[in-house]
Amino acid sequence: MAWNGDAGDALGRSTFQVDLDAIARAVYDSGAKVVGLQLPEGLKRLALPLIEGIEQATGAKVVLSADPCYGACDLVDDQFDPLGVQLVIHVGHSPMGDTEPRIPTVFLDAPSRLDVGPAVRDSLYKLGRGGRIGLLTTTQHKHALRDAKEILENAGYEVSVGTGGRRLAFPGQVLGCDFSAAKDVEHSVDTFLIVGGGSFHATGVAMSTRRPVVIADVERGEARTVEEELDLTLRRRSATIQKAMDCHTFGIIIEARPGQRRWKLAQSLAKMLHDAGREAVLMVMRNISPDRLVAVGLDAYVNTACPRLTIDDQSLFPMPLLTPVELRIMLGREGWDDYLLDTFD
Amino acid sequence: MAWNGDAGDALGRSTFQVDLDAIARAVYDSGAKVVGLQLPEGLKRLALPLIEGIEQATGAKVVLSADPCYGACDLVDDQFDPLGVQLVIHVGHSPMGDTEPRIPTVFLDAPSRLDVGPAVRDSLYKLGRGGRIGLLTTTQHKHALRDAKEILENAGYEVSVGTGGRRLAFPGQVLGCDFSAAKDVEHSVDTFLIVGGGSFHATGVAMSTRRPVVIADVERGEARTVEEELDLTLRRRSATIQKAMDCHTFGIIIEARPGQRRWKLAQSLAKMLHDAGREAVLMVMRNISPDRLVAVGLDAYVNTACPRLTIDDQSLFPMPLLTPVELRIMLGREGWDDYLLDTFD
Repeated sequence: MAWNGDAGDALGRSTFQVDLDAIARAVYDSGAKVVGLQLPEGLKRLALPLIEGIEQATGAKVVLSADPCYGACDLVDDQFDPLGVQLVIHVGHSPMGDTEPRIPTVFLDAPSRLDVGPAVRDSLYKLGRGGRIGLLTTTQHKHALRDAKEILENAGYEVSVGTGGRRLAFPGQVLGCDFSAAKDVEHSVDTFLIVGGGSFHATGVAMSTRRPVVIADVERGEARTVEEELDLTLRRRSATIQKAMDCHTFGIIIEARPGQRRWKLAQSLAKMLHDAGREAVLMVMRNISPDRLVAVGLDAYVNTACPRLTIDDQSLFPMPLLTPVELRIMLGREGWDDYLLDTFD
Repeated sequence: MAWNGDAGDALGRSTFQVDLDAIARAVYDSGAKVVGLQLPEGLKRLALPLIEGIEQATGAKVVLSADPCYGACDLVDDQFDPLGVQLVIHVGHSPMGDTEPRIPTVFLDAPSRLDVGPAVRDSLYKLGRGGRIGLLTTTQHKHALRDAKEILENAGYEVSVGTGGRRLAFPGQVLGCDFSAAKDVEHSVDTFLIVGGGSFHATGVAMSTRRPVVIADVERGEARTVEEELDLTLRRRSATIQKAMDCHTFGIIIEARPGQRRWKLAQSLAKMLHDAGREAVLMVMRNISPDRLVAVGLDAYVNTACPRLTIDDQSLFPMPLLTPVELRIMLGREGWDDYLLDTFD
């Protein structure tokens, strides 16, 4: 299928491959006349060329969801439904096995065009003595997992790729909220190598498995160990828990969307706080932002939605923001040595 | 019912009266075990005392909606539903006759405790020669409408209070998106007086009726005419429309919630743009913020959701944001002299 020059150019220039043909085919085959489109933040600027391409090829009307979309946990069926959307195209994330969309949804990968070779080869200098490597990656580099495995095996390493839980879409997948593929093989590896992803994934694996972790930074073409970042993160979280100890009123944040909803957990945390003589307010919200929390005016907040936000974005919030695990530590129900990242696995 | 000291104090200190007894009674009578609570931004800090009061009196579990709530058009049933909410308490806004909540909802006023007398008496110096006044107010000062009418009549004015359309909850109500109570009586008055509200309400009435408008600023205890503000607003909007004329790609923003959804209008605007040789992307979103629009990367945006945001908040957005009316003017389908505020009436 030949696309108009502009659409082709914009898509061709992107670091990520978005298969417009596959999308158009999926829309055409479904017979849908109204289609919803979800894109991760970094690909939102491809909305115009994609939409024009789909409309040109199929005659369907396309509506973009313009709210932030951080994963397959971020579905917006409740917004698409009233507009008569019959099919959702979700680009850039793998589906989550434990989250069922209400509207028929096609999940399409947006693989990175970048060559993982340089970063993986650089990691050979960082992996250390142990001969057994646990290999992990994100959706964007899934297609390169085999190449990465080969590079490691050719260098004499024994490589394991873990299977993990229902939320994951493929073996070796790591999510900001799910490290089960790492835990699956932690006892039979010496070091983990994550191809792609960011510091949060790496420190998450390190905290979940107590194994050394090396991250192959595909964009920079080099690898690094994560001990310093891990240490910094742990010290920051420790300081936040300390601050929260002096707080009296707590907001427990719940996200209503299926991929991030932990209502029972939120209620049990509220009870835990009441038992400890604190005050707790259950709060449901769409987008967790500092202004919203300042408006409600409580001393501290516990986030039962996306675990990554709490750890990565603390500096944006003028008050302590805790994960459920950290609240338990704060209330003395768990020790600091038991500290683990909050996960959905 | 005697409340604990803290709840009573916090509620007692607020500029707005929130009747905790009435709320508790409504919850108790409904038999609801899980209750949702919505509060306007300025009253979000009353969440804790209100929730404690309700839970203490009824044993029901309460969940606060912590997203911004600007009116009865801002319902969050889709977020309350998955949590099993059986009753919603919506404080501070009157219901909108054209918006039906999905979950049983009790709308409770939060009347201002401030005396409207000083501001209304000050307006007597600003009202001008004509003897006929159209009286308007917002939900917060609804209870003081009769007093205001009396002050005007005692001073010799003839006062009319318009009825308006389905969206309104009481005669004389003015909303940022609905000026029908003003239009109802515009031909039989010389000047409008708005008790309370802000510049946007006042300029909205001025633009909708082409009559002089005086605003009785209850918080300051004084009144002012709005010609300068109106003039500034019109000049700013004219400049924005000019800028938009040079734009090629447009995003048409749709809000999915019942109170703000104009899907058909959005689609017709997209067609209008295509016919004029421009490119258009239909976009549904929850919270319209500058970052979100920058991410999609279009030249300009047309907002079919809350009209007030487009006019009041333009300075926050680095690109032109237009109302549907302004887009029509930009495309030459209406003249500048026909300029009216975008409304839902």
